[in-house]
Amino acid sequence: MDKVLLTPLKIIDAKGGRVFHGIKKNSQGYTEFGEAYFSEIRHNEIKAWKKHKRMTMNLVVPVGKVKFVIYDDRSLKNKIFQEVILSPSNYQRLTIPPMIWFGFKGIAKKDSIILNIADILHESTEAENKNIEELNFNWSKK
Amino acid sequence: MDKVLLTPLKIIDAKGGRVFHGIKKNSQGYTEFGEAYFSEIRHNEIKAWKKHKRMTMNLVVPVGKVKFVIYDDRSLKNKIFQEVILSPSNYQRLTIPPMIWFGFKGIAKKDSIILNIADILHESTEAENKNIEELNFNWSKK
Repeated sequence: MDKVLLTPLKIIDAKGGRVFHGIKKNSQGYTEFGEAYFSEIRHNEIKAWKKHKRMTMNLVVPVGKVKFVIYDDRSLKNKIFQEVILSPSNYQRLTIPPMIWFGFKGIAKKDSIILNIADILHESTEAENKNIEELNFNWSKK
Repeated sequence: MDKVLLTPLKIIDAKGGRVFHGIKKNSQGYTEFGEAYFSEIRHNEIKAWKKHKRMTMNLVVPVGKVKFVIYDDRSLKNKIFQEVILSPSNYQRLTIPPMIWFGFKGIAKKDSIILNIADILHESTEAENKNIEELNFNWSKK
């Protein structure tokens, strides 16, 4: 995996509650299974910036609304921030390969939940962090 | 996998929102990856009964509160219903192997969310269903 992907996912109506697809072993963006975990993000809170050196993330937002911002500092020409807002109303899976900077902000009033299906186990030494100010993105704009 | 397992999981506090463990490739109860999907269950709604013939389910409740009921009709002596209530306050992973009847009820006021990390792809012919009345469990009791 070396490309950022956005893959539309199905939400299926059913009596008692819906079923939300996540990822299948034959899905675009899936390579292997390392670990599944959730990140909660509260209203107006931001977690940024992080870059995984080996992990490919597959991110799904079944609850709330989250703005993801990604930045590839290896690209000489196109050093641009890319943004996408994910929620059950724009229900897609975001695949982020290694070596991409990313951050996210909770934009629902309530807490939002992100599922990450990662291809390796979480390991703190495998990721790098920057303070939010170190990349010049305007998180306050609507 | 042929045993029902309950495995305590960690919730890690962090600025902006917590991190909830789910399952790792070396976790108890994990064999292989087939598919990850969410089931929503609304307040007081019940989904019952289902039995998978091949799928092992690994179930986690990061949002809300869900009562799970399981029943093994192959056991000659112990034809009993077993129940567990899962939520972020009792944050555990429930592993249900094939051939066990199960059902669940949303007991939070708001919608609850269940993540299933399944070892095979979803396939309707692989599961059996019974109507809720076909197994004599009192879903109304507290």
